[in-house]
Amino acid sequence: MKDTLLIKNASILPMTEAGWIETGYLLIEGNRIREVGSGSYHGKADTEIDAAGKVVMPGLVNTHGHAAMTLLRGYADDLPLMEWLETKCWPVEDRMTADDIYWGSQLAILEMIKTGTTCFTDMYFFMDRVAQAVEETGIRAVLGRGMIGFPPKGEQALRESEQFVRTWNGAANGRVTVTLAPHAPYTCPPDYVKQVAELSAELNVPIQTHLSETKGEVERCLAEHGCTPIRLMEQVGLFERPTLAAHCVHVTDEDIEIMARYDVKVAHNPDSNLKLGSGVAPVLKMLDKGLTVGLGTDGAASNNNLDMFEEMRQAAMIHKGVQYDPVAVSAYQALQMATVNGAKAVFLEDGHGTLQQGAPADLILIDYNRPYYYPRHNLMAHLVYAGQSGDVTDVIVDGRVLMRDRQMLTMDEQRIYHEVENVCKRLFA
Amino acid sequence: MKDTLLIKNASILPMTEAGWIETGYLLIEGNRIREVGSGSYHGKADTEIDAAGKVVMPGLVNTHGHAAMTLLRGYADDLPLMEWLETKCWPVEDRMTADDIYWGSQLAILEMIKTGTTCFTDMYFFMDRVAQAVEETGIRAVLGRGMIGFPPKGEQALRESEQFVRTWNGAANGRVTVTLAPHAPYTCPPDYVKQVAELSAELNVPIQTHLSETKGEVERCLAEHGCTPIRLMEQVGLFERPTLAAHCVHVTDEDIEIMARYDVKVAHNPDSNLKLGSGVAPVLKMLDKGLTVGLGTDGAASNNNLDMFEEMRQAAMIHKGVQYDPVAVSAYQALQMATVNGAKAVFLEDGHGTLQQGAPADLILIDYNRPYYYPRHNLMAHLVYAGQSGDVTDVIVDGRVLMRDRQMLTMDEQRIYHEVENVCKRLFA
Repeated sequence: MKDTLLIKNASILPMTEAGWIETGYLLIEGNRIREVGSGSYHGKADTEIDAAGKVVMPGLVNTHGHAAMTLLRGYADDLPLMEWLETKCWPVEDRMTADDIYWGSQLAILEMIKTGTTCFTDMYFFMDRVAQAVEETGIRAVLGRGMIGFPPKGEQALRESEQFVRTWNGAANGRVTVTLAPHAPYTCPPDYVKQVAELSAELNVPIQTHLSETKGEVERCLAEHGCTPIRLMEQVGLFERPTLAAHCVHVTDEDIEIMARYDVKVAHNPDSNLKLGSGVAPVLKMLDKGLTVGLGTDGAASNNNLDMFEEMRQAAMIHKGVQYDPVAVSAYQALQMATVNGAKAVFLEDGHGTLQQGAPADLILIDYNRPYYYPRHNLMAHLVYAGQSGDVTDVIVDGRVLMRDRQMLTMDEQRIYHEVENVCKRLFA
Repeated sequence: MKDTLLIKNASILPMTEAGWIETGYLLIEGNRIREVGSGSYHGKADTEIDAAGKVVMPGLVNTHGHAAMTLLRGYADDLPLMEWLETKCWPVEDRMTADDIYWGSQLAILEMIKTGTTCFTDMYFFMDRVAQAVEETGIRAVLGRGMIGFPPKGEQALRESEQFVRTWNGAANGRVTVTLAPHAPYTCPPDYVKQVAELSAELNVPIQTHLSETKGEVERCLAEHGCTPIRLMEQVGLFERPTLAAHCVHVTDEDIEIMARYDVKVAHNPDSNLKLGSGVAPVLKMLDKGLTVGLGTDGAASNNNLDMFEEMRQAAMIHKGVQYDPVAVSAYQALQMATVNGAKAVFLEDGHGTLQQGAPADLILIDYNRPYYYPRHNLMAHLVYAGQSGDVTDVIVDGRVLMRDRQMLTMDEQRIYHEVENVCKRLFA
């Protein structure tokens, strides 16, 4: 029989139709949720956590990012996207070793766990080391080896991606899943994207990519290919495969129709899009058309944190403001993006992103004993509009407690800071 | 001789031309800063705080709000401004007693101190009780009795405002200063605003008001008066008096010229303006014209917290995004708005909002031992783009420690929650 863990006296936000449970319990058996109920649990469990004064909700799912870019956090703020990439990020990235990526990812995972994220998405390089960090730390991740499609490295990227899928897809008790990750239409020519789509079918894995992040990218695509990046990706057959598209800031109504037709998932990164001056994605239209929209932080270099509470809040604020529409994106919709819809966006099914019987036990506890959670008019709205990630006290992934009362159980915080500082001393020398 | 308090081993962000001090000390004597320096202090002090691993910076100044609206936090989200005011806020406000205002303000002050704010602005009602809460808790505040200018209550508001100035201006060792606070052009007819300006001159106090918050307000003013609210206020002579104008979302280039001419201060409330669907103030243009812009949270009903870290971050993010300008509003400019320029905006001079010799000892300590403050590329950018208010550990106002290691020294947290819940039980019965 598997170990059981009981969380009792909790306010539970299951993110299902069951709705808010004012005081209840949640029983975990092994890595799955066995029971969620109101009132008290009358059986016994191997371990108990008293969650009085706390909210229990699904762990947050970060649907877009580049974990090891934590190494670049604050290194070059306030620059345009292409200049930022070309003169700042890329030269440093060229110098990054596999060890650097490992420690940068450790720092990212530490930050994510401490701020309530239980699953993240990553497309970067030296991905074996990212997967290693995921395996060691206990978090869940959807990983892809970032692919730039120009010769001669494009071929190598395909081979390494295939190898990465074969080695890591389903590893760490299923906590690691793998996608192919062509970087973007402007770095992957159409023929290359076709090859990626074919490989994705052959390996039976989905795809994640960047699409229509900036005005300039769309204009260039129109000039070079006579159509938008979304239309181009449809033409080359990318969307025949399950696809997660990050950003989608500059998309037309027709683009959104195409995305809806193929069920293209969207990773909405409101803070990164603001910070890089890219704009605001037309998320209301996407939701109207029934698209699955998750939230992402993007890399820490353009955010500058990996805080999904901030993305939830921004998602519930920014569209109201720029659309002059105070009822746009409710608190609950923002919570959905950050949990259940985020999980769908990164191709996790099986009840992921909810608290219900049979779902993976990925969840967080939040301390409600803060001034900004009073009075108790609407605890859901408080979580989105008033709360902060520092209120997360406990994090459980796949049934395992990774943080207890803000103490990290699988990671050595001070060691990570030390190693990261060492890495940066060399990298930015 | 006055008591001395030494803060040592600190990273100091003085918000003056002196710039960042990597490791230094700050000596407080009585309620003033006596010395700021790098390295170690060689004298003795009555009390010492070891700030190793912490940043010391000026306390944050919240330039616009309605403290006791904490009672309405989360009560009615996702509504248009006028409907929100008329059907939700005003009916409840009509029922509020002086005691309600007191406890709502206590909750607000508790939240503000815990999130790093050392001075706030308030325009609401039963202001004697707000002033009492300020006096008791040790925070600093710039208060105004909100005035609605229609008969017969308009006259009463003038009399009560005068009384409030005479009773409270300069009270609590100067921690309380008072302004007149006509609500807005659409609630205060031109003749009434004239009377307010005259009274302001007579009493020698400045003015705070709401201006051009929504498109609808400006359209109505144009229809009724043939000019914008800013132009109207100029015509009636309001700007002959020192004025702090909250919001200024829908202002024309000509409006900004007028404001510059009269040195009208601006309270920029980016989150409230987004959440109510009001829009984004043209802050870049204001800064270009040399206006003094501070940051405000507005009331907790439209935010839904009083967290100045979030306003700083939003101020540094939103203008980049909506102007497609990634260099708009730097981290340092956001810090200036939240400290030194905020202090100027609420008419506090005398070095307020900076850490330098002779300035009032209003300052905060921030724990830097968090994943999102690594690596240490740019600590200032980290504070704005990556930090959160929960990292504030210590708060000092007017030389007195109000929070030490996150423990409140002048307030009873649990009592306040209890009283607020009691108030709300009656108010929302």
